[in-house]
Amino acid sequence: MSKVAVIMGSTSDLPVMQEAIDILKGFDIEVEVDIVSAHRTPEKLFDFGKNAHKKGFSVIIAGAGGAAHLPGMVASLSPLPVIGVPVKSSNSIDGWDSVLSILQMPGGVPVATVALNGAKNAGILAAQIIGSSDRCVLDKIEAYKEGLKEKVIKGAESIKKGK
Amino acid sequence: MSKVAVIMGSTSDLPVMQEAIDILKGFDIEVEVDIVSAHRTPEKLFDFGKNAHKKGFSVIIAGAGGAAHLPGMVASLSPLPVIGVPVKSSNSIDGWDSVLSILQMPGGVPVATVALNGAKNAGILAAQIIGSSDRCVLDKIEAYKEGLKEKVIKGAESIKKGK
Amino acid sequence: MSKVAVIMGSTSDLPVMQEAIDILKGFDIEVEVDIVSAHRTPEKLFDFGKNAHKKGFSVIIAGAGGAAHLPGMVASLSPLPVIGVPVKSSNSIDGWDSVLSILQMPGGVPVATVALNGAKNAGILAAQIIGSSDRCVLDKIEAYKEGLKEKVIKGAESIKKGK
Amino acid sequence: MSKVAVIMGSTSDLPVMQEAIDILKGFDIEVEVDIVSAHRTPEKLFDFGKNAHKKGFSVIIAGAGGAAHLPGMVASLSPLPVIGVPVKSSNSIDGWDSVLSILQMPGGVPVATVALNGAKNAGILAAQIIGSSDRCVLDKIEAYKEGLKEKVIKGAESIKKGK
Amino acid sequence: MSKVAVIMGSTSDLPVMQEAIDILKGFDIEVEVDIVSAHRTPEKLFDFGKNAHKKGFSVIIAGAGGAAHLPGMVASLSPLPVIGVPVKSSNSIDGWDSVLSILQMPGGVPVATVALNGAKNAGILAAQIIGSSDRCVLDKIEAYKEGLKEKVIKGAESIKKGK
Amino acid sequence: MSKVAVIMGSTSDLPVMQEAIDILKGFDIEVEVDIVSAHRTPEKLFDFGKNAHKKGFSVIIAGAGGAAHLPGMVASLSPLPVIGVPVKSSNSIDGWDSVLSILQMPGGVPVATVALNGAKNAGILAAQIIGSSDRCVLDKIEAYKEGLKEKVIKGAESIKKGK
Amino acid sequence: MSKVAVIMGSTSDLPVMQEAIDILKGFDIEVEVDIVSAHRTPEKLFDFGKNAHKKGFSVIIAGAGGAAHLPGMVASLSPLPVIGVPVKSSNSIDGWDSVLSILQMPGGVPVATVALNGAKNAGILAAQIIGSSDRCVLDKIEAYKEGLKEKVIKGAESIKKGK
Amino acid sequence: MSKVAVIMGSTSDLPVMQEAIDILKGFDIEVEVDIVSAHRTPEKLFDFGKNAHKKGFSVIIAGAGGAAHLPGMVASLSPLPVIGVPVKSSNSIDGWDSVLSILQMPGGVPVATVALNGAKNAGILAAQIIGSSDRCVLDKIEAYKEGLKEKVIKGAESIKKGK
Repeated sequence: MSKVAVIMGSTSDLPVMQEAIDILKGFDIEVEVDIVSAHRTPEKLFDFGKNAHKKGFSVIIAGAGGAAHLPGMVASLSPLPVIGVPVKSSNSIDGWDSVLSILQMPGGVPVATVALNGAKNAGILAAQIIGSSDRCVLDKIEAYKEGLKEKVIKGAESIKKGK
Repeated sequence: MSKVAVIMGSTSDLPVMQEAIDILKGFDIEVEVDIVSAHRTPEKLFDFGKNAHKKGFSVIIAGAGGAAHLPGMVASLSPLPVIGVPVKSSNSIDGWDSVLSILQMPGGVPVATVALNGAKNAGILAAQIIGSSDRCVLDKIEAYKEGLKEKVIKGAESIKKGK
Repeated sequence: MSKVAVIMGSTSDLPVMQEAIDILKGFDIEVEVDIVSAHRTPEKLFDFGKNAHKKGFSVIIAGAGGAAHLPGMVASLSPLPVIGVPVKSSNSIDGWDSVLSILQMPGGVPVATVALNGAKNAGILAAQIIGSSDRCVLDKIEAYKEGLKEKVIKGAESIKKGK
Repeated sequence: MSKVAVIMGSTSDLPVMQEAIDILKGFDIEVEVDIVSAHRTPEKLFDFGKNAHKKGFSVIIAGAGGAAHLPGMVASLSPLPVIGVPVKSSNSIDGWDSVLSILQMPGGVPVATVALNGAKNAGILAAQIIGSSDRCVLDKIEAYKEGLKEKVIKGAESIKKGK
Repeated sequence: MSKVAVIMGSTSDLPVMQEAIDILKGFDIEVEVDIVSAHRTPEKLFDFGKNAHKKGFSVIIAGAGGAAHLPGMVASLSPLPVIGVPVKSSNSIDGWDSVLSILQMPGGVPVATVALNGAKNAGILAAQIIGSSDRCVLDKIEAYKEGLKEKVIKGAESIKKGK
Repeated sequence: MSKVAVIMGSTSDLPVMQEAIDILKGFDIEVEVDIVSAHRTPEKLFDFGKNAHKKGFSVIIAGAGGAAHLPGMVASLSPLPVIGVPVKSSNSIDGWDSVLSILQMPGGVPVATVALNGAKNAGILAAQIIGSSDRCVLDKIEAYKEGLKEKVIKGAESIKKGK
Repeated sequence: MSKVAVIMGSTSDLPVMQEAIDILKGFDIEVEVDIVSAHRTPEKLFDFGKNAHKKGFSVIIAGAGGAAHLPGMVASLSPLPVIGVPVKSSNSIDGWDSVLSILQMPGGVPVATVALNGAKNAGILAAQIIGSSDRCVLDKIEAYKEGLKEKVIKGAESIKKGK
Repeated sequence: MSKVAVIMGSTSDLPVMQEAIDILKGFDIEVEVDIVSAHRTPEKLFDFGKNAHKKGFSVIIAGAGGAAHLPGMVASLSPLPVIGVPVKSSNSIDGWDSVLSILQMPGGVPVATVALNGAKNAGILAAQIIGSSDRCVLDKIEAYKEGLKEKVIKGAESIKKGK
């Protein structure tokens, strides 16, 4: 069974990151959540990054704000795919700092970056990564996409009726 | 055997995207390359996106510049993980247009975005996605990371000797 | 009789897009409104884009936020002039993502982009496009511009009196 | 017969704007070219803007760089649809000044803005505007789009052969 | 006696522009206020710009938001020094559009640009321009600067006491 | 007789600032040029700023790049109008640093900012400031503006002939 | 005994700068607070900068907003290390102006810049500078870092319990 | 005797970072240079950061480009003051990524950031930090600043002679 780690730099990131946790649970994928701060708990970061693939995780989702080093440092330490979520924290310069600190990784060490505060998409992407070798999860993703479609169709109908 | 599709909006994107192809071949991962333009060949885009997972692909890498819609539209059509490479094309506004057009996808449809012109990292990320369920590829990634380390160590030594 | 399609990616775009609908109705131009999501209903997008000019539309107005692909994809599929409205959605990076995703289209596939949240101007521009071959609509635009002028003149007078 | 005016702020804009002229001629649409500077020939601007629709023009294409006021001022003076081309001039701040000066028009006075240096797309958009009421031009646009498609298909083939 | 014109694109700019009016009155400099919209009242703009120096004005202060063309167009029409105030209007992209539309004027037609919403400084600058040839106004500016200094000194004292 | 001071932070700014000197000489206005570095010669800055108005200068033009403090510091010290020229120096971040360091002055201490590298316009603006109380200089500005117009008209003619 | 000066351009900067004062007091480091405005009290700035190292200060922390010249001007006048705090003031353009005005100092005159509104970090950095030659302060910094770690560990535990 | 560590993420950063080394040697301060990559040699980073203060270093200068994590991660691991140099690397987005990744550190872990490619200033700042408790180094800094002044004075003279 595949398992996803959802880590973040601070408890204040949890309201944003909860969306990743919820969507993964909706796909019946096991999630483990932890606070790992690149800047305040570097030893925990090293321990986590070095061992994640040995603990049965398939994918790591890491969220952080400002000069966000957590996703990139975990990607430096782990051979697993790392998904980075730029979080728009309170003293951020409109989110640009978190986006660029996560996205612009040097050649050799990728981070799969999603939109600013895009934790939901990080969860879906983790499921897609698992789904790329697990037919059952792939089917759930197709069903999920079908659900998105239906919601739009209904929205379109209600608008036409409203006029 | 896993297979990766590397598609791009125009032949002019090939010099950038070649790095993804090369790194995947270095990992002995099968690659198929194609030109699919969201704006000039929408039917081909539709056909490609709808069928990629049926043709045995595990991951899709899509590169595009300017108002880059290819990665997001493929992600809309396919249940597979899609990696987006923002390409700094000639009339781009310093690359910001490609970065934001690929990164800022709405909730429900993620694109795993890498750095501007970061095709090499897109290739590594695709390998990591395959490696998350394929021990043999995971080992190759660990070896690759070991190689990166050695190169830095050697660089450090040559600098110390030089002084 | 000319007819304008006003489409948008999500019902949440309606408060912004309503201004386009209202101004067109004010010019007695027929409007049809629909929700078409490039990312969640790609089949509907294809169907809409391929057939809009056969259904009697003269102009298409498409609004979307974030990595806004709807205007560009409709422009890819339709020979009609497409007006794009960048919508400042909730997780947008200050609107830059929608502006650049719509504006920076590659050579061959233009989108007539208006200001951020500029749906009103999209409606006027659609009327001007119709007016370019319809004397009666052109006259209404001239009258509308005359009205703008009068409002400014009155504002100027009230300020002078107020002092 | 429809006729398009292509104006620009300076002769130094001509290399960029020539693409609009060429594409319109390719569609057999009559073009008239002129230099009209908002800042150096305001009287000519005024005269041009006030009378363009009386001289048989259907669409105006206006290109300018830096604090680009030409497209917006012509739109202020004329009831015709005005297409603005932001030109990346030598002392521009990476083109942002021309883009924002043309795009961010206030409610009431739209400019149909295309990409930075996107004169080719301005020409196509002008043709689409004419085509929205002229079946013959619409057919040419559909043929043009078909041509774009074929070029991509050929590019894709050559890449596959090359591998 | 020197006289300053304070014009703005819309009555909604008045709360910002009032600071220019107030500071000039504080210097006992005559002020005339008017609404002149580049985009909605181009004839009034032309008339104002062409004649301001004949009506006894020494300096023109012009405030506008978004694609702000008023200061630049007045500078195009008048030989007088024109001070431009970028106003952060409601649909502005964080004020960047007004700043760049006013600041980045082409060679030959300067606008003396002040900070975003910096109407107060526009008023002081107008007074300094008059003061450059009017000893009495220059003295008032020196006194004003002395006042600024005293306020800071008092603030510093109150902080020291407070600790 | 009015006199203008043209100062700059470094001899490397001279190629840009020369345009201000040339245009002022073209208007027969006396110019004095000096290097005054806010960061490297603060005492000279202080001395210059405190005494400029006593030495017969009417206007000060100050050019600087990067974190450009020269124009603002001179404005802090002198009651004269100060025109700031943001210079795009070699390690500048695309000129944004010089533009914002000069433009965004706090309330009370204005700098009349011109475009990036806009030294020519700084010279014209200085002439306009002098011209606001000197009929003879005002006439020269009107003649200069007439010259700009003629050049555009000739450019327009040559383009029409060329076609 | 080492002593730190905390200066700022305006009393309105105090709420932000207080964090620097508090953290330094927490490290038992002597602090002196003053208001010194580069633009409104240039004489006080000169006096302060010229004499700070003679009055027993080891480090200067300077906070300012907008076109923030205080940190750079103090660095120009003093041989001491100067820490600059960009303050996001009310009329700032999202803080970019203060960041760039402080960070982008020319070669020869460094300012140690911290994050936007990062006064707390300025205080810690000042303590680290003192600690680099004072074992006792270095120990306190190590203890402080240990405290940061523990807070994260506790946050992580509470999250795990909460689930 | 004080000692400074100059580290950088890659040998390609050396041409920029050499300026820090040279200026420190000019102040007769001992320098040790090393390549430490946060992303490719995380163990070396960890070892370096944990032990730098035990090896006799007083200050650490760390340079890196793109998503630059080296300065922040060293600051996380070491109690010493860390000076960060944003390097404008080849695939950087105009340097914004390195600037923001280094500057925008979270509360608790400061990095003393200097200008883009500002390695020379990093060296001077390191000397100033040492000089804050070492009278002899402080004297050298005062002499250095005197030298800067003289160079400007000579530049000013040569310009005046040239005219």
